[in-house]
Amino acid sequence: MATVTSHSVSGICAAARQAARGLAQLDSATKDAALEGIATALLSSIPEILEANERDLEAGRRAGLSSALLDRLSLDEGRVAATADGVRDIAALPDPVGEVIDGFRRPNGLDVRKVRVPLGVIAVVYEARPNVTIDAAALCLKSGNGIVLRGSSSAAHSNAVLAGLAAEAATAAGVPEGAIGLLGGGEREELAELATQNGVVDLIIPRGGEGLKDALEAVATVPVIYAASGNCHVYVDASADVDAARAIVLNAKLQRPGVCNSAETLLVHSAVASELLGPTLRALADAGVELRVDERTREHAAELDGSLRQAEDADWATEFLDLTLAVKVVDTVGEAIEHVNRYGSGHSEAIVTRDTGAARAFQLGVDAACVYVNASTRFTDGGEFGMGAEIGNSTQKLHARGPIGLRELCTFKYLVEGDGQVRP
Amino acid sequence: MATVTSHSVSGICAAARQAARGLAQLDSATKDAALEGIATALLSSIPEILEANERDLEAGRRAGLSSALLDRLSLDEGRVAATADGVRDIAALPDPVGEVIDGFRRPNGLDVRKVRVPLGVIAVVYEARPNVTIDAAALCLKSGNGIVLRGSSSAAHSNAVLAGLAAEAATAAGVPEGAIGLLGGGEREELAELATQNGVVDLIIPRGGEGLKDALEAVATVPVIYAASGNCHVYVDASADVDAARAIVLNAKLQRPGVCNSAETLLVHSAVASELLGPTLRALADAGVELRVDERTREHAAELDGSLRQAEDADWATEFLDLTLAVKVVDTVGEAIEHVNRYGSGHSEAIVTRDTGAARAFQLGVDAACVYVNASTRFTDGGEFGMGAEIGNSTQKLHARGPIGLRELCTFKYLVEGDGQVRP
Repeated sequence: MATVTSHSVSGICAAARQAARGLAQLDSATKDAALEGIATALLSSIPEILEANERDLEAGRRAGLSSALLDRLSLDEGRVAATADGVRDIAALPDPVGEVIDGFRRPNGLDVRKVRVPLGVIAVVYEARPNVTIDAAALCLKSGNGIVLRGSSSAAHSNAVLAGLAAEAATAAGVPEGAIGLLGGGEREELAELATQNGVVDLIIPRGGEGLKDALEAVATVPVIYAASGNCHVYVDASADVDAARAIVLNAKLQRPGVCNSAETLLVHSAVASELLGPTLRALADAGVELRVDERTREHAAELDGSLRQAEDADWATEFLDLTLAVKVVDTVGEAIEHVNRYGSGHSEAIVTRDTGAARAFQLGVDAACVYVNASTRFTDGGEFGMGAEIGNSTQKLHARGPIGLRELCTFKYLVEGDGQVRP
Repeated sequence: MATVTSHSVSGICAAARQAARGLAQLDSATKDAALEGIATALLSSIPEILEANERDLEAGRRAGLSSALLDRLSLDEGRVAATADGVRDIAALPDPVGEVIDGFRRPNGLDVRKVRVPLGVIAVVYEARPNVTIDAAALCLKSGNGIVLRGSSSAAHSNAVLAGLAAEAATAAGVPEGAIGLLGGGEREELAELATQNGVVDLIIPRGGEGLKDALEAVATVPVIYAASGNCHVYVDASADVDAARAIVLNAKLQRPGVCNSAETLLVHSAVASELLGPTLRALADAGVELRVDERTREHAAELDGSLRQAEDADWATEFLDLTLAVKVVDTVGEAIEHVNRYGSGHSEAIVTRDTGAARAFQLGVDAACVYVNASTRFTDGGEFGMGAEIGNSTQKLHARGPIGLRELCTFKYLVEGDGQVRP
């Protein structure tokens, strides 16, 4: 436990870098044993964890944190057990390290293999939820990376206990000391120092809101992958099965409105607008959704007039993350694609259609990480894609796009074998 | 030709972005026809190209450019023909766009495909060589990307003619107008404006020296992949076949000393130092190589004493790009790995050995894009790897590592198809 929270930012990062060398070469069995050790330690330390968490909660209450924030900060036996289960799930995933991605023999006899290897040291910067301490550490450990964690100061006691347990269990299983480091989570200077550890930290992954993103963008020289926002659309085409369309729209908006892969705008082809909009918008309004609509939507759903609010231009570009939906009528699939590419954040976009031409046009034309035909946008998730746990979803195009799972926490190298080849 | 050199930086970038939408969906036949058109246009416009080049050369002579720089700037019939051949080689490569990288059916019946798609708009910033105008444009076009070229002002006339021919031939073949844009190549403000075109330019690839890299690092907010320097090592293990080792060392140093995958440091196990060093260093010295050696190398090659210079600490970290080699004796493969990871730039590293344990330790332990067993470092090259032409070699770990070919100029998206799936 001397390895966490006890040093400077540069000291903790350097220790993780040093540990990363050995970590990269650990066999899967050792890493999985360390993960099992972490899960066991969590379950056998619940009183200690909850006591530390209570200290954070008490401080939070004194500081006047909102009840939503206090809930995110709060742990109980069930949440700790679920976190331990998550660690065991990660242990059960295939080891990404050493996977041969590509391989071939060249005409001169050289054998080339492109092999997945850890990135090195990954820093994860996150806000209130203390379970991220364990989730992130487990994903980075399984992928053979050194880990630097930086939670928020509001969860400092919880994070210290959790990271300490994880580090201790990992070391006991044979993981090099220093592999899991925790920063204090205090001042902005700490973040700036972390974000400029070039050559020591290979990647920073922030998990948090726009404020954190802005703070990092302003200072980071280390590469950052932003687990970014999702302004996602469902487009219901002229040829759509209206029942399927309604089910998909309701699911994409209501199943979990506060997450990045939920829908924020509904686009409807004018040919099905009358048939679709009345019942669908009524169901949404009954579920408490605020509807911000264009003129034509109002015409097609006149019976709902009292529940409709005029959409403003900003609504098309907003990730509400809440029970709010923007609605617009379009006349062609091309117009829908145009709208999605203009306002979308490149996360998850869906078309509901029975027309192969419209489906193909939408999948080819929409520039986003995940483009769905006849399915809810809510499936953009490492678990739903069969990749196992994820550390977030990327809307950037370089390195990782979509769910960031174990493979995305790796790079690769070319291993080339010969018997004396020289270049003529 | 109205599409090049005639607008503002933001105008040219926006045109490329606009064109990129259509470009991403062009079939391979159209792109290959455009490339063939460019090759034909180059060959039928040699007088025009050489005339423009002569104006650059004249201005360069007046400005007192070195003869090396003038040589890099200079085109002749053979160089233009070779450039046209290069374009045809790129046309003959498989189209990376649409390749299915991964695909699976989920238990709920969703079909997921991970499909390669263009990045969008790629800017290439380069120095004197005007042929890069065509090489870069051809690679970006084949990979379905909009292109913004920024050459140096010293090659402005040559680049304008070359980019104009390429843009005209591409448009004639059905590529959207604006797909190939050329900036003036003048002031630093232009570079800064280009490097901050977030949301318009997806990636910047600089091809040039450290000055260009520093200039970009200071201002870029758009992602940059640096085609970086190579401080490459050859390590000759205790068990090496000494003849093979000598051949590999000579090839890695001498075959083309001015490029990034040539060797800069020779590490030799003490057990073979006496046998290897005398003849190898003599051959190197005879070829004009300056040898900067540690104490122990001097002891093992006493007969060469007059040709040996004491290595300084900075020599281990230097990419000489010239007829200079640092030489050091080590006692274990572990010591060699330690040295390589400390001083290397993560480009290309080689071990010469007959010992499987040493080979495995070196390949696993060395953190570099390409790790060779019993072959010259000079093979790190898109062509040598069978990837076709490359736009450079990356020593960074995110997105592209090693040769940057057509696939590395792409991202991917997940295409998901269902029949009404919603998330429970």
